[in-house]
Amino acid sequence: MTPGRQRRFDVIGFDADDTLWHSEDSFHQVERRYVDLLAPYVADGVDVRDALRATERRHVPISGYGVKAFTLSMVECAVTASQGAVPATVIGDIVGLGMAMLTEPVRLLPNVAEVLVDVGTDHRLVLITKGDLVHQWRKLEMSGLAHHFVHIDVVMEKDEKMYRRVLADVDCQPGRFCMVGNSVRSDVLPVLAIGGHAVHIEYEYTWEHELVEHDKSVVTAASILDIPGLVR
Amino acid sequence: MTPGRQRRFDVIGFDADDTLWHSEDSFHQVERRYVDLLAPYVADGVDVRDALRATERRHVPISGYGVKAFTLSMVECAVTASQGAVPATVIGDIVGLGMAMLTEPVRLLPNVAEVLVDVGTDHRLVLITKGDLVHQWRKLEMSGLAHHFVHIDVVMEKDEKMYRRVLADVDCQPGRFCMVGNSVRSDVLPVLAIGGHAVHIEYEYTWEHELVEHDKSVVTAASILDIPGLVR
Repeated sequence: MTPGRQRRFDVIGFDADDTLWHSEDSFHQVERRYVDLLAPYVADGVDVRDALRATERRHVPISGYGVKAFTLSMVECAVTASQGAVPATVIGDIVGLGMAMLTEPVRLLPNVAEVLVDVGTDHRLVLITKGDLVHQWRKLEMSGLAHHFVHIDVVMEKDEKMYRRVLADVDCQPGRFCMVGNSVRSDVLPVLAIGGHAVHIEYEYTWEHELVEHDKSVVTAASILDIPGLVR
Repeated sequence: MTPGRQRRFDVIGFDADDTLWHSEDSFHQVERRYVDLLAPYVADGVDVRDALRATERRHVPISGYGVKAFTLSMVECAVTASQGAVPATVIGDIVGLGMAMLTEPVRLLPNVAEVLVDVGTDHRLVLITKGDLVHQWRKLEMSGLAHHFVHIDVVMEKDEKMYRRVLADVDCQPGRFCMVGNSVRSDVLPVLAIGGHAVHIEYEYTWEHELVEHDKSVVTAASILDIPGLVR
Protein backbone atom coordinates (compact mmCIF):
# COMPACT_ATOMS: atom_id res chain seq x y z
CA MET A 1 0.00 0.00 0.00
CA THR A 2 1.34 3.45 -0.89
CA PRO A 3 1.82 5.33 2.39
CA GLY A 4 -0.37 8.39 2.70
CA ARG A 5 -2.75 7.33 -0.03
CA GLN A 6 -6.31 6.58 0.94
CA ARG A 7 -7.59 3.34 -0.60
CA ARG A 8 -11.19 3.27 -1.80
CA PHE A 9 -11.54 -0.49 -1.20
CA ASP A 10 -10.11 -3.19 1.05
CA VAL A 11 -11.21 -6.22 -0.94
CA ILE A 12 -11.53 -6.69 -4.69
CA GLY A 13 -13.61 -9.65 -5.86
CA PHE A 14 -13.03 -11.26 -9.23
CA ASP A 15 -15.33 -13.53 -11.18
CA ALA A 16 -13.47 -16.32 -13.02
CA ASP A 17 -15.19 -17.62 -16.21
CA ASP A 18 -14.95 -14.99 -18.97
CA THR A 19 -13.34 -12.53 -16.57
CA LEU A 20 -10.00 -14.23 -15.88
CA TRP A 21 -10.16 -16.94 -18.52
CA HIS A 22 -12.21 -17.87 -21.58
CA SER A 23 -15.20 -20.10 -20.96
CA GLU A 24 -18.34 -19.20 -22.88
CA ASP A 25 -16.63 -19.38 -26.27
CA SER A 26 -16.01 -23.05 -25.62
CA PHE A 27 -19.73 -23.65 -24.95
CA HIS A 28 -20.48 -21.91 -28.26
CA GLN A 29 -17.99 -24.03 -30.13
CA VAL A 30 -19.33 -27.26 -28.63
CA GLU A 31 -22.86 -26.15 -29.38
CA ARG A 32 -22.00 -25.65 -33.06
CA ARG A 33 -20.53 -29.14 -33.18
CA TYR A 34 -23.64 -30.47 -31.39
CA VAL A 35 -25.98 -28.90 -33.93
CA ASP A 36 -23.97 -30.50 -36.75
CA LEU A 37 -24.01 -33.90 -35.05
CA LEU A 38 -27.79 -33.81 -34.65
CA ALA A 39 -28.64 -32.31 -38.03
CA PRO A 40 -29.20 -35.65 -39.80
CA TYR A 41 -31.70 -36.76 -37.15
CA VAL A 42 -33.98 -33.78 -36.62
CA ALA A 43 -36.97 -32.88 -38.75
CA ASP A 44 -36.90 -29.77 -40.93
CA GLY A 45 -37.98 -26.75 -38.99
CA VAL A 46 -36.67 -27.97 -35.62
CA ASP A 47 -34.22 -25.41 -34.23
CA VAL A 48 -31.80 -27.49 -32.16
CA ARG A 49 -30.29 -24.38 -30.52
CA ASP A 50 -33.71 -23.23 -29.30
CA ALA A 51 -34.53 -26.72 -28.09
CA LEU A 52 -31.23 -26.92 -26.18
CA ARG A 53 -31.82 -23.50 -24.65
CA ALA A 54 -35.28 -24.61 -23.49
CA THR A 55 -33.85 -27.80 -21.96
CA GLU A 56 -31.13 -25.82 -20.16
CA ARG A 57 -33.66 -23.33 -18.79
CA ARG A 58 -35.69 -26.20 -17.39
CA HIS A 59 -32.63 -27.91 -15.88
CA VAL A 60 -30.83 -24.93 -14.31
CA PRO A 61 -32.89 -24.88 -11.09
CA ILE A 62 -32.30 -28.63 -10.70
CA SER A 63 -28.80 -29.23 -11.98
CA GLY A 64 -27.24 -25.76 -11.74
CA TYR A 65 -24.49 -24.27 -13.86
CA GLY A 66 -21.50 -25.84 -15.45
CA VAL A 67 -20.34 -28.34 -18.01
CA LYS A 68 -21.90 -31.46 -16.48
CA ALA A 69 -25.33 -29.82 -16.36
CA PHE A 70 -24.82 -28.56 -19.93
CA THR A 71 -23.83 -32.03 -21.13
CA LEU A 72 -26.88 -33.65 -19.54
CA SER A 73 -29.03 -31.02 -21.25
CA MET A 74 -27.35 -31.80 -24.59
CA VAL A 75 -28.07 -35.52 -24.14
CA GLU A 76 -31.68 -35.05 -23.14
CA CYS A 77 -32.31 -32.55 -25.93
CA ALA A 78 -30.71 -34.87 -28.49
CA VAL A 79 -33.29 -37.52 -27.60
CA THR A 80 -36.28 -35.19 -27.64
CA ALA A 81 -35.30 -32.99 -30.62
CA SER A 82 -34.70 -36.09 -32.75
CA GLN A 83 -37.88 -37.74 -31.47
CA GLY A 84 -35.80 -40.69 -30.38
CA ALA A 85 -34.03 -41.09 -33.74
CA VAL A 86 -30.52 -40.14 -32.63
CA PRO A 87 -28.20 -43.18 -32.57
CA ALA A 88 -26.37 -44.18 -29.41
CA THR A 89 -22.99 -43.53 -31.04
CA VAL A 90 -23.93 -39.85 -31.48
CA ILE A 91 -24.95 -39.73 -27.81
CA GLY A 92 -21.51 -41.14 -27.04
CA ASP A 93 -19.94 -38.33 -29.08
CA ILE A 94 -22.00 -35.75 -27.20
CA VAL A 95 -20.86 -37.08 -23.80
CA GLY A 96 -17.33 -37.01 -25.23
CA LEU A 97 -17.70 -33.32 -26.09
CA GLY A 98 -18.67 -32.60 -22.49
CA MET A 99 -15.84 -34.65 -20.99
CA ALA A 100 -13.38 -32.87 -23.29
CA MET A 101 -14.64 -29.49 -22.04
CA LEU A 102 -13.97 -30.63 -18.46
CA THR A 103 -10.32 -31.30 -19.24
CA GLU A 104 -9.46 -28.65 -21.83
CA PRO A 105 -6.59 -26.30 -20.94
CA VAL A 106 -7.31 -22.96 -19.31
CA ARG A 107 -6.88 -20.02 -21.68
CA LEU A 108 -6.25 -16.87 -19.67
CA LEU A 109 -7.61 -13.58 -20.94
CA PRO A 110 -4.90 -11.02 -21.81
CA ASN A 111 -3.11 -9.14 -19.01
CA VAL A 112 -4.90 -11.00 -16.21
CA ALA A 113 -1.83 -12.04 -14.22
CA GLU A 114 -0.25 -8.56 -14.35
CA VAL A 115 -3.45 -6.86 -13.21
CA LEU A 116 -3.88 -9.27 -10.29
CA VAL A 117 -0.30 -8.59 -9.19
CA ASP A 118 -0.89 -4.84 -9.47
CA VAL A 119 -4.25 -4.69 -7.68
CA GLY A 120 -3.04 -7.26 -5.15
CA THR A 121 -0.27 -5.00 -3.89
CA ASP A 122 -2.72 -2.88 -1.90
CA HIS A 123 -5.93 -4.96 -1.77
CA ARG A 124 -6.98 -8.37 -0.59
CA LEU A 125 -8.26 -10.29 -3.61
CA VAL A 126 -11.05 -12.85 -3.49
CA LEU A 127 -12.29 -15.08 -6.28
CA ILE A 128 -16.04 -15.74 -6.43
CA THR A 129 -17.26 -18.07 -9.11
CA LYS A 130 -20.33 -20.08 -9.94
CA GLY A 131 -20.42 -23.46 -11.56
CA ASP A 132 -19.15 -26.91 -10.98
CA LEU A 133 -16.95 -27.41 -7.91
CA VAL A 134 -14.55 -29.93 -9.43
CA HIS A 135 -14.26 -28.17 -12.76
CA GLN A 136 -13.72 -24.70 -11.28
CA TRP A 137 -11.00 -25.97 -8.95
CA ARG A 138 -9.27 -27.79 -11.78
CA LYS A 139 -9.30 -24.62 -13.90
CA LEU A 140 -8.04 -22.56 -11.00
CA GLU A 141 -5.15 -24.94 -10.42
CA MET A 142 -4.29 -25.02 -14.12
CA SER A 143 -4.51 -21.22 -14.32
CA GLY A 144 -1.60 -20.64 -11.96
CA LEU A 145 -3.58 -17.75 -10.45
CA ALA A 146 -4.73 -19.26 -7.15
CA HIS A 147 -1.93 -17.71 -5.08
CA HIS A 148 -3.21 -14.18 -5.81
CA PHE A 149 -6.37 -14.79 -3.78
CA VAL A 150 -6.78 -14.78 0.00
CA HIS A 151 -10.15 -16.48 -0.38
CA ILE A 152 -11.71 -18.59 -3.14
CA ASP A 153 -15.40 -19.41 -3.19
CA VAL A 154 -17.22 -21.61 -5.67
CA VAL A 155 -20.83 -20.68 -5.02
CA MET A 156 -24.18 -21.95 -6.13
CA GLU A 157 -25.78 -18.64 -6.96
CA LYS A 158 -24.40 -15.11 -6.95
CA ASP A 159 -27.10 -13.30 -5.05
CA GLU A 160 -27.20 -10.72 -2.26
CA LYS A 161 -27.23 -13.35 0.46
CA MET A 162 -24.11 -15.04 -0.92
CA TYR A 163 -22.20 -11.77 -1.25
CA ARG A 164 -23.11 -10.82 2.34
CA ARG A 165 -21.85 -14.22 3.52
CA VAL A 166 -18.56 -14.01 1.62
CA LEU A 167 -17.91 -10.44 2.84
CA ALA A 168 -18.55 -11.57 6.42
CA ASP A 169 -16.11 -14.47 5.88
CA VAL A 170 -13.36 -12.10 4.74
CA ASP A 171 -14.34 -9.46 7.30
CA CYS A 172 -15.07 -6.64 4.87
CA GLN A 173 -17.82 -3.99 4.88
CA PRO A 174 -19.84 -3.89 1.62
CA GLY A 175 -18.82 -0.26 1.07
CA ARG A 176 -15.16 -1.31 1.07
CA PHE A 177 -15.72 -4.06 -1.52
CA CYS A 178 -15.56 -3.90 -5.30
CA MET A 179 -16.54 -6.84 -7.52
CA VAL A 180 -15.17 -7.25 -11.05
CA GLY A 181 -16.87 -9.53 -13.58
CA ASN A 182 -18.47 -10.03 -16.95
CA SER A 183 -22.04 -10.63 -15.79
CA VAL A 184 -24.19 -7.63 -14.84
CA ARG A 185 -26.73 -10.05 -13.40
CA SER A 186 -24.31 -11.98 -11.19
CA ASP A 187 -21.29 -9.74 -10.60
CA VAL A 188 -22.81 -6.26 -10.52
CA LEU A 189 -26.46 -5.89 -9.51
CA PRO A 190 -26.47 -8.01 -6.30
CA VAL A 191 -23.26 -6.30 -5.13
CA LEU A 192 -24.72 -2.82 -5.68
CA ALA A 193 -27.89 -3.95 -3.89
CA ILE A 194 -26.00 -4.68 -0.66
CA GLY A 195 -24.11 -1.36 -0.80
CA GLY A 196 -20.97 -2.60 -2.53
CA HIS A 197 -19.28 -1.46 -5.71
CA ALA A 198 -18.79 -3.28 -9.00
CA VAL A 199 -17.15 -2.97 -12.39
CA HIS A 200 -18.51 -4.77 -15.44
CA ILE A 201 -16.05 -6.05 -18.05
CA GLU A 202 -17.88 -7.16 -21.14
CA TYR A 203 -16.93 -10.49 -22.72
CA GLU A 204 -17.51 -11.48 -26.33
CA TYR A 205 -20.34 -13.87 -25.46
CA THR A 206 -22.92 -13.75 -22.69
CA TRP A 207 -24.94 -16.83 -21.78
CA GLU A 208 -28.62 -16.09 -22.27
CA HIS A 209 -29.25 -16.97 -18.63
CA GLU A 210 -26.95 -14.12 -17.54
CA LEU A 211 -28.67 -11.43 -19.62
CA VAL A 212 -30.53 -8.91 -17.51
CA GLU A 213 -32.26 -5.57 -17.86
CA HIS A 214 -30.42 -2.70 -16.23
CA ASP A 215 -30.37 1.06 -16.45
CA LYS A 216 -26.92 1.21 -18.12
CA SER A 217 -25.48 3.25 -15.25
CA VAL A 218 -23.20 0.31 -14.46
CA VAL A 219 -19.47 1.14 -14.33
CA THR A 220 -17.91 -0.57 -17.31
CA ALA A 221 -14.32 -1.38 -18.20
CA ALA A 222 -13.19 -2.10 -21.74
CA SER A 223 -10.76 -4.71 -20.42
CA ILE A 224 -9.17 -5.87 -17.19
CA LEU A 225 -6.37 -3.35 -17.85
CA ASP A 226 -8.73 -0.58 -16.72
CA ILE A 227 -9.29 -2.18 -13.31
CA PRO A 228 -6.26 -0.82 -11.41
CA GLY A 229 -7.26 2.75 -12.34
CA LEU A 230 -10.95 2.19 -11.58
CA VAL A 231 -10.52 0.71 -8.09
CA ARG A 232 -8.07 3.36 -6.83
CA MET B 1 -22.49 -26.33 28.31
CA THR B 2 -22.85 -27.95 31.71
CA PRO B 3 -20.95 -25.73 34.16
CA GLY B 4 -17.98 -27.42 35.71
CA ARG B 5 -17.81 -30.13 33.09
CA GLN B 6 -14.79 -30.19 30.83
CA ARG B 7 -15.70 -30.66 27.18
CA ARG B 8 -13.48 -32.91 25.07
CA PHE B 9 -14.24 -31.07 21.82
CA ASP B 10 -15.19 -27.58 20.67
CA VAL B 11 -16.39 -28.43 17.19
CA ILE B 12 -18.18 -31.55 15.92
CA GLY B 13 -18.17 -32.13 12.17
CA PHE B 14 -20.90 -34.12 10.46
CA ASP B 15 -20.87 -35.71 7.06
CA ALA B 16 -24.25 -35.50 5.28
CA ASP B 17 -24.95 -38.30 2.74
CA ASP B 18 -25.61 -41.59 4.57
CA THR B 19 -24.78 -39.94 7.89
CA LEU B 20 -27.70 -37.50 8.26
CA TRP B 21 -29.86 -38.72 5.38
CA HIS B 22 -30.11 -41.68 3.02
CA SER B 23 -28.23 -41.36 -0.25
CA GLU B 24 -26.38 -44.46 -1.40
CA ASP B 25 -29.50 -46.65 -1.33
CA SER B 26 -30.97 -44.42 -3.99
CA PHE B 27 -27.91 -44.97 -6.24
CA HIS B 28 -28.38 -48.71 -5.74
CA GLN B 29 -32.03 -48.56 -6.64
CA VAL B 30 -31.38 -46.50 -9.76
CA GLU B 31 -28.58 -48.85 -10.74
CA ARG B 32 -30.94 -51.83 -10.55
CA ARG B 33 -33.40 -50.01 -12.78
CA TYR B 34 -30.52 -49.11 -15.12
CA VAL B 35 -29.39 -52.72 -15.45
CA ASP B 36 -32.97 -53.74 -16.30
CA LEU B 37 -33.29 -50.96 -18.89
CA LEU B 38 -30.08 -52.03 -20.63
CA ALA B 39 -30.57 -55.79 -20.40
CA PRO B 40 -32.22 -56.18 -23.84
CA TYR B 41 -29.32 -54.38 -25.54
CA VAL B 42 -26.19 -55.93 -24.07
CA ALA B 43 -24.57 -59.15 -25.20
CA ASP B 44 -24.62 -62.21 -22.94
CA GLY B 45 -21.72 -62.14 -20.56
CA VAL B 46 -21.48 -58.35 -20.33
CA ASP B 47 -21.79 -57.29 -16.68
CA VAL B 48 -23.41 -53.86 -16.85
CA ARG B 49 -22.65 -53.17 -13.16
CA ASP B 50 -18.95 -53.81 -13.68
CA ALA B 51 -18.94 -51.70 -16.82
CA LEU B 52 -20.65 -48.83 -14.99
CA ARG B 53 -18.18 -49.09 -12.11
CA ALA B 54 -15.28 -48.91 -14.56
CA THR B 55 -16.78 -45.85 -16.26
CA GLU B 56 -17.32 -44.15 -12.90
CA ARG B 57 -13.75 -44.87 -11.82
CA ARG B 58 -12.47 -43.29 -15.01
CA HIS B 59 -14.74 -40.24 -14.63
CA VAL B 60 -14.31 -39.42 -10.94
CA PRO B 61 -11.05 -37.47 -11.34
CA ILE B 62 -12.65 -35.44 -14.14
CA SER B 63 -16.26 -35.04 -13.14
CA GLY B 64 -16.14 -35.63 -9.39
CA TYR B 65 -18.83 -37.04 -7.13
CA GLY B 66 -22.55 -36.71 -7.24
CA VAL B 67 -25.64 -37.46 -9.25
CA LYS B 68 -24.76 -35.48 -12.38
CA ALA B 69 -21.41 -37.26 -12.70
CA PHE B 70 -23.15 -40.60 -12.04
CA THR B 71 -25.78 -39.88 -14.69
CA LEU B 72 -23.15 -39.00 -17.29
CA SER B 73 -21.39 -42.26 -16.45
CA MET B 74 -24.65 -44.17 -16.88
CA VAL B 75 -25.20 -42.57 -20.29
CA GLU B 76 -21.68 -43.21 -21.53
CA CYS B 77 -21.69 -46.78 -20.24
CA ALA B 78 -25.07 -47.46 -21.88
CA VAL B 79 -23.56 -46.59 -25.25
CA THR B 80 -20.38 -48.61 -24.77
CA ALA B 81 -21.84 -51.64 -22.97
CA SER B 82 -24.51 -52.01 -25.67
CA GLN B 83 -21.96 -51.41 -28.44
CA GLY B 84 -24.10 -48.58 -29.70
CA ALA B 85 -27.30 -50.62 -29.73
CA VAL B 86 -29.18 -48.81 -26.98
CA PRO B 87 -32.08 -46.74 -28.40
CA ALA B 88 -32.28 -43.00 -27.75
CA THR B 89 -35.51 -43.43 -25.82
CA VAL B 90 -33.69 -45.58 -23.25
CA ILE B 91 -31.00 -42.89 -23.00
CA GLY B 92 -33.81 -40.45 -22.31
CA ASP B 93 -35.08 -42.72 -19.53
CA ILE B 94 -31.59 -42.87 -18.03
CA VAL B 95 -31.26 -39.09 -17.95
CA GLY B 96 -34.73 -39.04 -16.40
CA LEU B 97 -33.56 -41.38 -13.62
CA GLY B 98 -30.73 -38.94 -12.84
CA MET B 99 -32.92 -35.86 -12.88
CA ALA B 100 -35.39 -37.63 -10.57
CA MET B 101 -32.57 -38.36 -8.11
CA LEU B 102 -31.71 -34.65 -8.07
CA THR B 103 -35.21 -33.72 -6.96
CA GLU B 104 -36.23 -36.65 -4.76
CA PRO B 105 -37.22 -35.79 -1.19
CA VAL B 106 -34.63 -35.98 1.58
CA ARG B 107 -35.12 -39.01 3.84
CA LEU B 108 -33.48 -38.31 7.20
CA LEU B 109 -31.89 -41.18 9.07
CA PRO B 110 -33.54 -41.94 12.45
CA ASN B 111 -32.88 -39.67 15.43
CA VAL B 112 -30.73 -37.21 13.48
CA ALA B 113 -32.52 -34.01 14.47
CA GLU B 114 -32.60 -34.92 18.19
CA VAL B 115 -28.90 -35.77 18.25
CA LEU B 116 -27.95 -32.51 16.53
CA VAL B 117 -29.98 -30.56 19.09
CA ASP B 118 -28.32 -32.48 21.92
CA VAL B 119 -24.72 -32.25 20.71
CA GLY B 120 -25.31 -28.66 19.57
CA THR B 121 -26.08 -27.47 23.11
CA ASP B 122 -22.40 -27.51 24.05
CA HIS B 123 -20.53 -27.75 20.73
CA ARG B 124 -20.33 -25.79 17.54
CA LEU B 125 -21.52 -28.03 14.71
CA VAL B 126 -20.15 -27.93 11.17
CA LEU B 127 -21.35 -29.86 8.14
CA ILE B 128 -18.72 -31.07 5.70
CA THR B 129 -19.94 -32.86 2.62
CA LYS B 130 -18.64 -33.87 -0.76
CA GLY B 131 -20.57 -33.93 -3.98
CA ASP B 132 -22.53 -31.64 -6.15
CA LEU B 133 -22.90 -28.07 -4.93
CA VAL B 134 -26.45 -27.49 -6.13
CA HIS B 135 -27.73 -30.91 -5.11
CA GLN B 136 -26.16 -30.82 -1.63
CA TRP B 137 -27.60 -27.38 -0.92
CA ARG B 138 -31.04 -28.43 -2.12
CA LYS B 139 -30.94 -31.48 0.17
CA LEU B 140 -29.74 -29.38 3.06
CA GLU B 141 -32.58 -26.91 2.60
CA MET B 142 -35.15 -29.70 2.30
CA SER B 143 -33.72 -31.45 5.36
CA GLY B 144 -34.63 -28.64 7.74
CA LEU B 145 -31.27 -29.22 9.46
CA ALA B 146 -29.25 -26.24 8.21
CA HIS B 147 -29.88 -24.09 11.30
CA HIS B 148 -27.99 -26.56 13.51
CA PHE B 149 -24.68 -25.73 11.81
CA VAL B 150 -22.46 -22.68 12.30
CA HIS B 151 -20.60 -23.55 9.11
CA ILE B 152 -21.49 -25.61 6.04
CA ASP B 153 -18.90 -26.65 3.50
CA VAL B 154 -19.49 -28.55 0.27
CA VAL B 155 -16.00 -29.64 -0.64
CA MET B 156 -14.35 -31.29 -3.59
CA GLU B 157 -12.34 -33.86 -1.73
CA LYS B 158 -12.17 -34.76 1.96
CA ASP B 159 -8.44 -34.83 2.49
CA GLU B 160 -6.06 -33.53 5.14
CA LYS B 161 -5.59 -30.20 3.40
CA MET B 162 -9.33 -29.58 3.27
CA TYR B 163 -9.86 -30.46 6.95
CA ARG B 164 -7.02 -28.12 7.93
CA ARG B 165 -8.62 -25.34 5.91
CA VAL B 166 -12.10 -25.86 7.38
CA LEU B 167 -10.72 -26.00 10.95
CA ALA B 168 -8.82 -22.75 10.31
CA ASP B 169 -12.05 -21.19 9.00
CA VAL B 170 -13.95 -22.12 12.16
CA ASP B 171 -10.96 -21.32 14.38
CA CYS B 172 -10.58 -24.75 15.97
CA GLN B 173 -7.47 -26.76 16.82
CA PRO B 174 -7.49 -30.29 15.33
CA GLY B 175 -7.26 -31.81 18.82
CA ARG B 176 -10.53 -30.10 19.73
CA PHE B 177 -12.36 -31.40 16.67
CA CYS B 178 -14.30 -34.62 16.17
CA MET B 179 -15.70 -35.68 12.80
CA VAL B 180 -18.69 -38.02 12.46
CA GLY B 181 -19.42 -39.86 9.23
CA ASN B 182 -20.05 -43.10 7.39
CA SER B 183 -16.86 -43.18 5.32
CA VAL B 184 -13.61 -44.30 6.95
CA ARG B 185 -11.75 -43.05 3.92
CA SER B 186 -13.25 -39.54 3.88
CA ASP B 187 -14.53 -38.85 7.39
CA VAL B 188 -12.06 -40.69 9.61
CA LEU B 189 -8.53 -41.30 8.29
CA PRO B 190 -7.68 -37.76 7.08
CA VAL B 191 -9.02 -36.28 10.34
CA LEU B 192 -6.91 -38.64 12.45
CA ALA B 193 -3.91 -37.81 10.23
CA ILE B 194 -4.06 -34.13 11.17
CA GLY B 195 -4.42 -34.87 14.89
CA GLY B 196 -8.20 -34.72 15.09
CA HIS B 197 -10.72 -37.26 16.32
CA ALA B 198 -13.40 -39.15 14.42
CA VAL B 199 -16.29 -41.55 14.87
CA HIS B 200 -17.37 -43.91 12.13
CA ILE B 201 -21.08 -44.73 11.77
CA GLU B 202 -21.58 -47.54 9.35
CA TYR B 203 -24.29 -47.24 6.70
CA GLU B 204 -26.03 -50.10 4.93
CA TYR B 205 -24.22 -49.44 1.64
CA THR B 206 -20.75 -48.07 0.99
CA TRP B 207 -19.82 -46.82 -2.46
CA GLU B 208 -16.88 -48.84 -3.77
CA HIS B 209 -14.89 -45.63 -4.17
CA GLU B 210 -15.13 -45.01 -0.42
CA LEU B 211 -13.85 -48.44 0.63
CA VAL B 212 -10.42 -48.33 2.23
CA GLU B 213 -8.06 -50.56 4.14
CA HIS B 214 -7.68 -49.66 7.77
CA ASP B 215 -6.49 -51.31 10.95
CA LYS B 216 -10.00 -51.55 12.51
CA SER B 217 -8.95 -49.42 15.47
CA VAL B 218 -11.39 -46.75 14.24
CA VAL B 219 -13.96 -45.64 16.83
CA THR B 220 -17.30 -46.94 15.62
CA ALA B 221 -20.85 -46.07 16.56
CA ALA B 222 -23.79 -48.37 15.87
CA SER B 223 -25.96 -45.35 15.11
CA ILE B 224 -26.01 -41.59 15.52
CA LEU B 225 -27.68 -42.13 18.92
CA ASP B 226 -24.25 -43.12 20.30
CA ILE B 227 -22.67 -39.80 19.30
CA PRO B 228 -23.64 -37.64 22.30
CA GLY B 229 -22.02 -40.21 24.64
CA LEU B 230 -18.94 -40.66 22.48
CA VAL B 231 -18.06 -36.99 22.11
CA ARG B 232 -18.44 -36.08 25.80
